[in-house]
Amino acid sequence: MENIYIIGVGMTFFGRQKEKSIKDLTREAVQEALQDAGIEYKEIQCAYVGNTAQGLLEDQYCISGPIALRSMGFEGIPMLTVENACATASTALYLAIHFLQSGQGDVAMAVGVEKLNAGPKDKRFAIFDGCWDVYLTEESTKKLLSMAEGFEVPPGTQTTEPYSVFMDIYAAGARWHMQKYGTTQRQIAAVASSNHTNSKLNPRAQYQIPLTIEQVLAAPPITYPLTMPMCSPISDGAAAAIICTEDGLKRLGLDKKRAIKVHASVLGTGITRDDNDETKNIASLAAAKAYEMAGLGPEDMSVAEVHDATACGQIFQVENLGFCARGMGGPCAEAGDFSLAGRLPVNPSGGLLSKGHPIGATGLGQVWELVTQLRGEAGARQVEGARFAIQENGGGVIGLEEAVCYVGVYGKCD
Amino acid sequence: MENIYIIGVGMTFFGRQKEKSIKDLTREAVQEALQDAGIEYKEIQCAYVGNTAQGLLEDQYCISGPIALRSMGFEGIPMLTVENACATASTALYLAIHFLQSGQGDVAMAVGVEKLNAGPKDKRFAIFDGCWDVYLTEESTKKLLSMAEGFEVPPGTQTTEPYSVFMDIYAAGARWHMQKYGTTQRQIAAVASSNHTNSKLNPRAQYQIPLTIEQVLAAPPITYPLTMPMCSPISDGAAAAIICTEDGLKRLGLDKKRAIKVHASVLGTGITRDDNDETKNIASLAAAKAYEMAGLGPEDMSVAEVHDATACGQIFQVENLGFCARGMGGPCAEAGDFSLAGRLPVNPSGGLLSKGHPIGATGLGQVWELVTQLRGEAGARQVEGARFAIQENGGGVIGLEEAVCYVGVYGKCD
Repeated sequence: MENIYIIGVGMTFFGRQKEKSIKDLTREAVQEALQDAGIEYKEIQCAYVGNTAQGLLEDQYCISGPIALRSMGFEGIPMLTVENACATASTALYLAIHFLQSGQGDVAMAVGVEKLNAGPKDKRFAIFDGCWDVYLTEESTKKLLSMAEGFEVPPGTQTTEPYSVFMDIYAAGARWHMQKYGTTQRQIAAVASSNHTNSKLNPRAQYQIPLTIEQVLAAPPITYPLTMPMCSPISDGAAAAIICTEDGLKRLGLDKKRAIKVHASVLGTGITRDDNDETKNIASLAAAKAYEMAGLGPEDMSVAEVHDATACGQIFQVENLGFCARGMGGPCAEAGDFSLAGRLPVNPSGGLLSKGHPIGATGLGQVWELVTQLRGEAGARQVEGARFAIQENGGGVIGLEEAVCYVGVYGKCD
Repeated sequence: MENIYIIGVGMTFFGRQKEKSIKDLTREAVQEALQDAGIEYKEIQCAYVGNTAQGLLEDQYCISGPIALRSMGFEGIPMLTVENACATASTALYLAIHFLQSGQGDVAMAVGVEKLNAGPKDKRFAIFDGCWDVYLTEESTKKLLSMAEGFEVPPGTQTTEPYSVFMDIYAAGARWHMQKYGTTQRQIAAVASSNHTNSKLNPRAQYQIPLTIEQVLAAPPITYPLTMPMCSPISDGAAAAIICTEDGLKRLGLDKKRAIKVHASVLGTGITRDDNDETKNIASLAAAKAYEMAGLGPEDMSVAEVHDATACGQIFQVENLGFCARGMGGPCAEAGDFSLAGRLPVNPSGGLLSKGHPIGATGLGQVWELVTQLRGEAGARQVEGARFAIQENGGGVIGLEEAVCYVGVYGKCD
């Protein structure tokens, strides 16, 4: 695998940005990434864009990516729009890496952009309902919810619309984890508290209000055991990463010290669930492959950004990524292992929960944070001595599985 | 560039297939491609899917590709959904080629699928209206239509809804070509007549009714100079291609004689229009790059499939691909140069006009035809001695330009 480096990252504020168009958001992220890399846009030889909802919300059903970039002057080069549910932006990066590794060029760009605060309010939730097999929604939801069968749900804690089925699915998974491992609602709240506390230090985060475990528990219930701050919000935003080859670094005369090396880039899809073997889930498999590709293990990681679409998602993922033993995600969270001051900070940015979750931009938002951390430029939320970082970005649901999952491993060059 | 081979192709009937789901169509094309390659689905190491309209028409906004493939057993491997307007399927192939060339694996698959005969009838035209910048539709349409300013449009030949703005844009381009080069409506009708006549020999084509030039001219007008058989129809269908590396060929023990070599695979986007230099359009530029990559020229091509979303599109493209001098596309068509018996058969399949245009599948439908021709398996429409073939697949509109364009060059191995 040819060496690939991230040389520039850009990211807008994540949150409600009703006054900004998709083009505005794209321009903001891309311009920052170009400035960060110190190169002109004409150096970019391919530009892949991730977006999920502009068709639904603004009737831009086709070529939304090329259109947004063309308005900035990009032309001639290969451009396309890619979609992979919540893993959309990472998928754009995955493909841009292959563009370089296949020898097509030496500088490429991946962009993710989403504007969910657009169009009629009731329409925007359809994007979530369109994240799993629309032909099977009822059946698969029933199956998912039956996972937690026999586990008593406190009265008055049913789904609050319009959070819809997605939160039900996560909640069912959480109840399954609670049953199997004794995970408590308080431990899940500890994840949300940690992430909301981190994002107080992130000026680009949607929420910047630290929450205690008690505040998280006392918040309005969504679906048991999830309360509102345990669920990611509706967000607008964009993020971009510019990458290059070893030759590209030289040609552009860039300082390798600021470049971040891509040690692994893995995209996988869910496999048939095996309740007797929890290592057979897509995030575990993708992580194993990524560690192998990088020649590194979980013990080498200094910092992580993982897919906490809900707080319990983070508990699953720290286990899948090997940060703790199976079933220990909850206790470790409550013990502060994954807090900013803990042994392995997870979601220092605030994560999807608190930094925000503009679907098609989320994965590259994670990359932005990790690159910033690895460069030692994360300010008040800097993880000291960060050397290697891991990203996990999942998306969609097929049957009982997460549909897709991207895992990236990145590291300092010096 | 590492050698890449197409080892299996599959394609459904293109046309109205209301009773078949996206999953059915996908399965049909993929199963044929697997059977054609003589391999099991478990050999496929990445599967990229092109689709544009399942969100709009069936509310499957996300992961439509992975969902369709998962229902066939595909799991674990990288999967994603890509969109690039009418060039969607070719873009999936472009990316799958890079997956292999980047060293990620030795066997990959690209699939394109579209079901336009779904959902409410009035809704399906929105996919075309979403093929250019929705913020600029009125302005850019006005500009486009002004290209043919001063050219008298016969009365009673205005746009017939719901063919909408897309046909207006093509018609404006046609009128510009008529003004500049003296191209006649009869010459454009000759293209449609040739393609509709070819598809009589293609059992998978939507229309299999040969039409004379007179019949094309006498058909209901859409927007001058286009009549109905000069415009591609609304279609459902799927097509798939399985590709592999040199190592993959050996590992699978496949006969190289039946494999088709990918000599070039180029994706580009439109550049700012220069009316004084017609070589500065995306198809010409992509073709020039493809010929260079292949080390071949237009004179080496035995057969071509080009993007005839309208008959005048084919006139533009034969010029862009260098099959004749600028301005000679019309006269050459009328002289039969690009007919099945002509010096360089174009769209022997019937093209988009007559084989059909299931947007997200179209590009791989072209590949299916060219692979079949190069293998000498095209039956009654076989181009004798076909050795090298070229594909041109465009999509979308940005400003005055075609938004994206894919050009592929393929050849026999022996």
